[in-house]
Amino acid sequence: MFIGIDLGGTKILTAVADKNGKVIASVKVDTQAKLGPKRVIDNIKRSVMLTLAKANIPLSRISCIGVGAPGPIIGKGTIVSPPNLPGWKKVDIKKLLEKMFRKRVVVENDANAAALAELMFGAGKHAKNLLYITISTGIGGGIIINRRIYRGSYGIAGEIGHMNVLIDGPRCKCGNRGCLEAVASGPSIARFAGKNDALAVENSARKGDKRSLEAIDQAAKHIGTTVGSVNNLLDLDMIVIGGGVANMGDLLFKPIRKWASKCAMSITRKHLKIVPAKLKTNVGVMGAIAICLKGSPDEARRAKSGDE
Amino acid sequence: MFIGIDLGGTKILTAVADKNGKVIASVKVDTQAKLGPKRVIDNIKRSVMLTLAKANIPLSRISCIGVGAPGPIIGKGTIVSPPNLPGWKKVDIKKLLEKMFRKRVVVENDANAAALAELMFGAGKHAKNLLYITISTGIGGGIIINRRIYRGSYGIAGEIGHMNVLIDGPRCKCGNRGCLEAVASGPSIARFAGKNDALAVENSARKGDKRSLEAIDQAAKHIGTTVGSVNNLLDLDMIVIGGGVANMGDLLFKPIRKWASKCAMSITRKHLKIVPAKLKTNVGVMGAIAICLKGSPDEARRAKSGDE
Repeated sequence: MFIGIDLGGTKILTAVADKNGKVIASVKVDTQAKLGPKRVIDNIKRSVMLTLAKANIPLSRISCIGVGAPGPIIGKGTIVSPPNLPGWKKVDIKKLLEKMFRKRVVVENDANAAALAELMFGAGKHAKNLLYITISTGIGGGIIINRRIYRGSYGIAGEIGHMNVLIDGPRCKCGNRGCLEAVASGPSIARFAGKNDALAVENSARKGDKRSLEAIDQAAKHIGTTVGSVNNLLDLDMIVIGGGVANMGDLLFKPIRKWASKCAMSITRKHLKIVPAKLKTNVGVMGAIAICLKGSPDEARRAKSGDE
Repeated sequence: MFIGIDLGGTKILTAVADKNGKVIASVKVDTQAKLGPKRVIDNIKRSVMLTLAKANIPLSRISCIGVGAPGPIIGKGTIVSPPNLPGWKKVDIKKLLEKMFRKRVVVENDANAAALAELMFGAGKHAKNLLYITISTGIGGGIIINRRIYRGSYGIAGEIGHMNVLIDGPRCKCGNRGCLEAVASGPSIARFAGKNDALAVENSARKGDKRSLEAIDQAAKHIGTTVGSVNNLLDLDMIVIGGGVANMGDLLFKPIRKWASKCAMSITRKHLKIVPAKLKTNVGVMGAIAICLKGSPDEARRAKSGDE
């Protein structure tokens, strides 16, 4: 049995699952991020205990705890100042939880974990090389190469939201201009349409509101062009798009596919596959379980040295 | 000893090298591509014989022949209609050369082979993840992930020249609009500057010609923004730029680095490394030797099954 922990800025979602990824029980608690790392760690402990109790499974039956955490992970499990976890300056959450539970703990960036979850349990079951994108308040991504998480040379790969799509375009939260996130995230779509949020844009668009439809097409143009271009570069099996904004469904996916196809080379166009994520709000916790099962640096090392 | 063959549209460059990549002798013959595959294969045979004679090494001492060929390679060694080899519709060059020489033959796309050559013998000796770009008549690329060639799901990865940089931009040879190649290749730079070729643009720019300097900065802007963005996505050790246009040196690299830095996330900016290729005109033949030594699908399989 495995425990997966989706550590978010507002909620901690924890689940117990078996080796097939079947969830036995799950529990959601408030992160209370503003109260600092100590309180958050206490809340993680509480969520694990609550989940085990709900599942009626003793801790002794758990072989691994997976944590999906925001921001880059240094080394094996050190979280480094993610914007939505104030006060977290190099917290070695792996060590802390290993000490607390005396279990193997694997930690992974949440977008990477989500990419692996889609590969193992979601839309990418038969894929070898896959790009996962999440579009919500921001735009994040995770890359799977050869059915493993690709972390890059410094552990920060996957930042598709900060690929430039418009030179001298609008300012992005990262400080640069014209990032994909600055023109196609939920808030960017809402701003362009003059609405409060992406859901309001979707509702107006469904009623035929021209400006809302334009705002969605504008975002889809940039998303589609980016993923089509990335597919020319990486020649992937598929691109999986999740996150709150992706819940728009065909309203967003149709123009994304149109624009992506426009910039795909003819030889890659026939393979181009852009699909919605299958795992919805539980993609984070499924990612945390997925890294327990496979793809963590630990796991890879163990597999190599043959001690598993 | 190894033989490397750089099969180009106009020349075939063949070399004999030892296991450290040290070239013993090399020979260049005309491809005579217009006379069809049969004649080209004959010329390859002749170039191999000439090279062995020049090196004074018998064929019996050769353990592997590597071929770097244009266009995508299907399966283990089938060349599929590259634009500069007319009449080549699915030629299994691996089988043909294996029959001819009774040696192991490995075939690789030329840009992929060049990327591996830069990794093994050139600018990327200590890199793990590397992007190689060649800028000349066209713009091509090869990706190294984990010190191996990354071919993608259908064997066509690396086409950075066909990433879109300008929606509805100028028409590209590939049929699409606004590809990097359409705005930053040698001919594109020349067209923008009103010159015959990129070399003429370079010469004028060195004399202070404004339009030529602008043309170079324009290309550098698109190249820099693309590689900076790709580095946000792939978090590479380095980006190596070769090809005839890259011979401009700092005239091109300085603005490329400036623009790349502009769109790099602050966390990736400090790692961003854009360097000129070290191997010049012999990068192709060194690539063909590199794939003999490592990175060919064959080699990987052999290494795995332990029969080497």
